[in-house]
Amino acid sequence: MTSRDILHMRRAIALAARGLGGTSPNPVVGCVILDPSGEVAGEGFHAYAGGPHAEVVALREAGERARGGTAYVTLEPCNHTGRTGPCSAALLEAGVARVVVAVSDPNPKAAGGAAVLREHGVVVDEGVLTAEAEEVNAAWLTYVRAGRPYVTWKFAATVDGRSAAEDGTSQWITSPEARADVHRLRAESDAVIAGIGTVLADDPRLTARVPAPLREAPVLRVVVDSGARTPAAARVLDGEAPTLVAVAEDAAVPAHLSPHAVRLPRVPGGIDLRALLAELHGRQVVSVLIEGGPVLAGAFLREGLVDRVVGYLAPALLGAGAAALGPAGASTITEIHRLEFAGVTPVGPDLRLVLRPKSSAPQSPKES
Amino acid sequence: MTSRDILHMRRAIALAARGLGGTSPNPVVGCVILDPSGEVAGEGFHAYAGGPHAEVVALREAGERARGGTAYVTLEPCNHTGRTGPCSAALLEAGVARVVVAVSDPNPKAAGGAAVLREHGVVVDEGVLTAEAEEVNAAWLTYVRAGRPYVTWKFAATVDGRSAAEDGTSQWITSPEARADVHRLRAESDAVIAGIGTVLADDPRLTARVPAPLREAPVLRVVVDSGARTPAAARVLDGEAPTLVAVAEDAAVPAHLSPHAVRLPRVPGGIDLRALLAELHGRQVVSVLIEGGPVLAGAFLREGLVDRVVGYLAPALLGAGAAALGPAGASTITEIHRLEFAGVTPVGPDLRLVLRPKSSAPQSPKES
Repeated sequence: MTSRDILHMRRAIALAARGLGGTSPNPVVGCVILDPSGEVAGEGFHAYAGGPHAEVVALREAGERARGGTAYVTLEPCNHTGRTGPCSAALLEAGVARVVVAVSDPNPKAAGGAAVLREHGVVVDEGVLTAEAEEVNAAWLTYVRAGRPYVTWKFAATVDGRSAAEDGTSQWITSPEARADVHRLRAESDAVIAGIGTVLADDPRLTARVPAPLREAPVLRVVVDSGARTPAAARVLDGEAPTLVAVAEDAAVPAHLSPHAVRLPRVPGGIDLRALLAELHGRQVVSVLIEGGPVLAGAFLREGLVDRVVGYLAPALLGAGAAALGPAGASTITEIHRLEFAGVTPVGPDLRLVLRPKSSAPQSPKES
Repeated sequence: MTSRDILHMRRAIALAARGLGGTSPNPVVGCVILDPSGEVAGEGFHAYAGGPHAEVVALREAGERARGGTAYVTLEPCNHTGRTGPCSAALLEAGVARVVVAVSDPNPKAAGGAAVLREHGVVVDEGVLTAEAEEVNAAWLTYVRAGRPYVTWKFAATVDGRSAAEDGTSQWITSPEARADVHRLRAESDAVIAGIGTVLADDPRLTARVPAPLREAPVLRVVVDSGARTPAAARVLDGEAPTLVAVAEDAAVPAHLSPHAVRLPRVPGGIDLRALLAELHGRQVVSVLIEGGPVLAGAFLREGLVDRVVGYLAPALLGAGAAALGPAGASTITEIHRLEFAGVTPVGPDLRLVLRPKSSAPQSPKES
């Protein structure tokens, strides 16, 4: 592995990131093609499910210059014919001599591309910038490896952890810049989840107000509502985007909720969140954003189902009012949920914190 | 003002900072002396009250090379004879041709140095890196201009704003690195203040466990204890450092508190904090650190008496337990205490946030 390999793979990862929010249920992938002299001949990324794969886009741009050249791909080239042909075949056909791969494909349906390339005499180097490439694909890797959507909990609060003042007012604690960033977070997610408490209190739309990527479906809105109490006039039922209302199996579901309701097992405190995530996985939801409700966020955290926390901290203090996070199963200090800071960036006057569980690698499915 | 002026003044400010915690009730001051050819001939800072001033230290090192040279001083050279002679005279005697000053001396007793130098033909340039030099001297400038100590509130919490778990356990939310940084904060302060709630609950020592600067007196410990309830066995009364117990004027003071007690006006919720700060100002306390108690911190904040907030955020979540900050007079969103981030730095695995009120310049005394 040379420093040039790292340089080109880093560029391929940056290209991959441009597909975030558009490719579900596919991964994001970026590709850089060099001609035999080492000049960049083509670049590409996978922009939307059903659209051309990154390798195909880059090969098209490179044309005949790809022959004898090198391809940098953030994910092992696929080896199966889905809505597009296998990328391994496209690379062979173009005469690429060397393929550098960051992450091996964990998807059994698509894996094997590296082996096929090698069989045909192509040099394949794997493991270049694996950690960085796993990070950009964290959602999809969790979806494939753990068999559930990647869960992000987002909150906005003062530095003393308040999301509203004592009288319930909260508009606005964070800046317009931070709120715009939240819309981007939503647009990058396949589903946005809120608790019934938030729906009843704030009546949010839960739609993304930034141009959506080229996704096949709009962001799914999900209300966790064990008692089926979402009112007919709630904005989440306004038809602007599809909405799922997760109710307990024994709930009496009113007519206005029937088209949206999905019945899930009841557990103490609400519905079974693992069952909810399994339901969403079955609907090819790769990533979800928990938006509303300290209680709901606490429940996900208690179950160990939060993969990423994104917190917007305003440089402000309240000293009273609703807490950003509700009971999360930690009643004594040894039960504290330890994470690590993965990013700290200013957003306008506010601070955007990204935290991940300490073992941040996407988990393999647990035996059960 | 040239880029060389900025360079040398920045160095002088860095030198000044080395005196933090040692110089009270004097300011911190740094000085750089150039010889006539522009080479650095001497450096110095004021290290402790009663010790030589920065200019004198730097002039000693420069010796005859100072003649015809330039002096960079973070604060206008003093013009009065205290425990040491006036620095204006020392600069004249050394034959310095030009003096560059960052901040004019607001202390009427010591001001006038620039005028004396000019009268004797020295070129004096003022206003170089004023903001940076004011920042390093923020405590002393508040002490002189506002007539009260500079108040820092320090807290340690999870990112959701909890300073203890539900059962009261809190050792440790933050890392050893963050806790060492707190000891440094204490050592830089002239007094550390805790509320009686914290004394009764945690029985803290409130001493700095890092080598103290060359201060004349150890850090004063102050307990805000309107009802004079500090127990005789409390660690704050262990004699390791002087302790002041601020009680309400009408409190029944037990014998063990008599040597420590100072009586202050009672106000709703406790004692008059402005009267406490006036008392501390009278004792030449330039800077205080509020350490213990969300209630006490809320009271200082409500009164507009917090000049700086230093928060240590652990990458952890609790969802329940004691909040870092208690009621602070903001019951609706328009009453939120707005500040601004003045610094965000990692400390071990934690994050150290520094916030200041939006108008961060030290205030002049209010008319009353």
